[in-house]
Amino acid sequence: MPYYIGDVIKDYKRLVIRTPEEFQKTGIDARIKTTVEAIDPHKGMVHLLNGPSLPYDILVMATGADAVRLGIPGEDLEGVFTLRNLTDALKMKSYLNEKGCRKAIIIGAGYIGMEMCEALKNLGIEVKVLDILPRPVIRWDAEFAKLILEELSKNQVAFLAETKPLSIEKGNSSKLRLVTNEGVLDADMILIGVGTKRNTKLAESMGLKIGKSGAIQVDAFQRTSSENVYAVGDCCEVFHRVSRKWVYYPLGDIANKQGRIAGQNIGGLSSEFPGIVGAQSFKVFNLEVAATGLTEEEAERDGFQPASNMIWGLPVGRPMARGEKLGIKLIADKKTAKLLGAQTIGEKGAVQRINSLSLALWCGLNLDEISYVDLAYAPPFGGAWDAIHIAAQTLRAKI
Amino acid sequence: MPYYIGDVIKDYKRLVIRTPEEFQKTGIDARIKTTVEAIDPHKGMVHLLNGPSLPYDILVMATGADAVRLGIPGEDLEGVFTLRNLTDALKMKSYLNEKGCRKAIIIGAGYIGMEMCEALKNLGIEVKVLDILPRPVIRWDAEFAKLILEELSKNQVAFLAETKPLSIEKGNSSKLRLVTNEGVLDADMILIGVGTKRNTKLAESMGLKIGKSGAIQVDAFQRTSSENVYAVGDCCEVFHRVSRKWVYYPLGDIANKQGRIAGQNIGGLSSEFPGIVGAQSFKVFNLEVAATGLTEEEAERDGFQPASNMIWGLPVGRPMARGEKLGIKLIADKKTAKLLGAQTIGEKGAVQRINSLSLALWCGLNLDEISYVDLAYAPPFGGAWDAIHIAAQTLRAKI
Repeated sequence: MPYYIGDVIKDYKRLVIRTPEEFQKTGIDARIKTTVEAIDPHKGMVHLLNGPSLPYDILVMATGADAVRLGIPGEDLEGVFTLRNLTDALKMKSYLNEKGCRKAIIIGAGYIGMEMCEALKNLGIEVKVLDILPRPVIRWDAEFAKLILEELSKNQVAFLAETKPLSIEKGNSSKLRLVTNEGVLDADMILIGVGTKRNTKLAESMGLKIGKSGAIQVDAFQRTSSENVYAVGDCCEVFHRVSRKWVYYPLGDIANKQGRIAGQNIGGLSSEFPGIVGAQSFKVFNLEVAATGLTEEEAERDGFQPASNMIWGLPVGRPMARGEKLGIKLIADKKTAKLLGAQTIGEKGAVQRINSLSLALWCGLNLDEISYVDLAYAPPFGGAWDAIHIAAQTLRAKI
Repeated sequence: MPYYIGDVIKDYKRLVIRTPEEFQKTGIDARIKTTVEAIDPHKGMVHLLNGPSLPYDILVMATGADAVRLGIPGEDLEGVFTLRNLTDALKMKSYLNEKGCRKAIIIGAGYIGMEMCEALKNLGIEVKVLDILPRPVIRWDAEFAKLILEELSKNQVAFLAETKPLSIEKGNSSKLRLVTNEGVLDADMILIGVGTKRNTKLAESMGLKIGKSGAIQVDAFQRTSSENVYAVGDCCEVFHRVSRKWVYYPLGDIANKQGRIAGQNIGGLSSEFPGIVGAQSFKVFNLEVAATGLTEEEAERDGFQPASNMIWGLPVGRPMARGEKLGIKLIADKKTAKLLGAQTIGEKGAVQRINSLSLALWCGLNLDEISYVDLAYAPPFGGAWDAIHIAAQTLRAKI
């Protein structure tokens, strides 16, 4: 399997792909579309496929992750896309421009799938999203899924639960046909967003230690088990401050941070990555959905005694409320009353609350402290008792 | 000066004033519009004006604060209002209903004044706001004031700087005339919002200790210097976690928290109020403005060596940006790199950032930690590097 140096050279934020010519101007010897065949960490050599071998003093592994594929017939047909990198996005865009598309099917109701619903709907495309699980975004509470399903339905997106894709064929009225255990669906475009697979083969072949999570083992300086070899991003592990374990968490902001840490250490500073708490969010039409920390299942697996509670509060002060809802689920440890995780949902203010609660997790606050924490009160932004306070007090009273 | 038990009996959140009848139904002996003449803490007696004396086992002082008045002639004319409590709001409302109002003047460009600009403009009233200081909301950086002035001007609200009210007279074309050092202004309604004055006279007369801040001294349990006497809200001090000092901070959310703490302790629990960090916010038209922690002046006065920096970032990811600005000013200690304070401004996301930074202050994080703190990244809510990270990294590089 080929690995492309430069696969990581995509500045997603600005949607610019740096060309070899641009790199030459900077004086950096950048070789994109170049496959690494093997690495010899003892000699400090990178062997390129059909090319020379390059010596290194410092090596950074940033091999990322690949989209998981379904392994069903027809997956390589034109009009079938994975949802992973910028190349996928550009391919989709030119397909839409050249071939047009009236109907799209999204396989996988994770949060990338949810975001794609909105993107495609905004282009006037009829969208169906299906999953083998009984509800979308399984990480979030079942109560939340109800609101998400309402929001999808309000926007004419159909969700098909417990639906397993079996094969993809060329279509008649539409360009493609998706055969599932629940029947056949027509579509002009099929997007597969069913997860990612850490890209560790090259790392394994050169003898780097792989952590329990299945990703490359690193320390807080982003150093691997091999001297002068660093790893960053979706191919390596990260330290979770709540579980105190090294975990696999392939998110873009974490990859950015790890890259900066590795760069600083390579450049002679001594920078430690302080870890993560698992903050994440997505938007689906007019709904903000966010989470941080551990789920109950994760907390139990990690040796905590989780208790949880869910409240429906307001994202604004009561006199300002116009029917908006804000759902907050908190998970805390029964023994210590320490916060372990949180989930929020609502038209507004859901991400704001998760960010505050992420800081609370970062610092290891317990429910008593969170019940009184100082937030910037004004009626347009919350009550004198914020929904966070109420959620913490309610769960505190329960455990 | 009379003190009304029941002055605090206003449930601002629901805009309900509880009547004596309502209270009687609950079995509580509530006496509103009742003046306390004196309190004898040794005998445990409250002496009412023209009424009986009431014994107590536990006393809660919740005498609040009064609006500061200007002390100029004409301040008592009909159509002149202070901006303090629900009664003020109800009086204003009935004046507007009965007399009508085309032009209003707000004296004092603090954040209550700013909020009133929007409220009155929404009623179609012409609004001028004036202050003796050169810019509005002096707590915030001068850079922020520029945006606020732009926002006022965009909404046809005039701001008159360095303008001192001298007297109020009956008007001719309008109902009132405000004479200032800068000339005469016509208005049908004049609102005075120039600050509050802690209401500590009764406390002083009964011998309660007054803190350095000039408010009633309390401990973390809300106990005053006199046994079985508690104090809560705008009449008492509060512990500031950043300066480690007892300060006066008359904000509604703090008062609520102190009330709950006192109630729990009176009820037999042992609850400590963990203090505040000074989080606050207001909205003026489409602008969110927020702050937390100390200003540079406060930090210096409190013995820190403050350094500060201001950045203009984005409240959303770059591909989602539609020209929104987000200003973040951070203040940190040069010696320890600990965060001391923050200010934010913008059309969206300003309060969200202050709440996260308030948690960072609450836990005493330094700029290195804040540079990598885990926030819920998704392009609709921020960049992979949030404006918070960039602000922290920029200030870190400077000190």
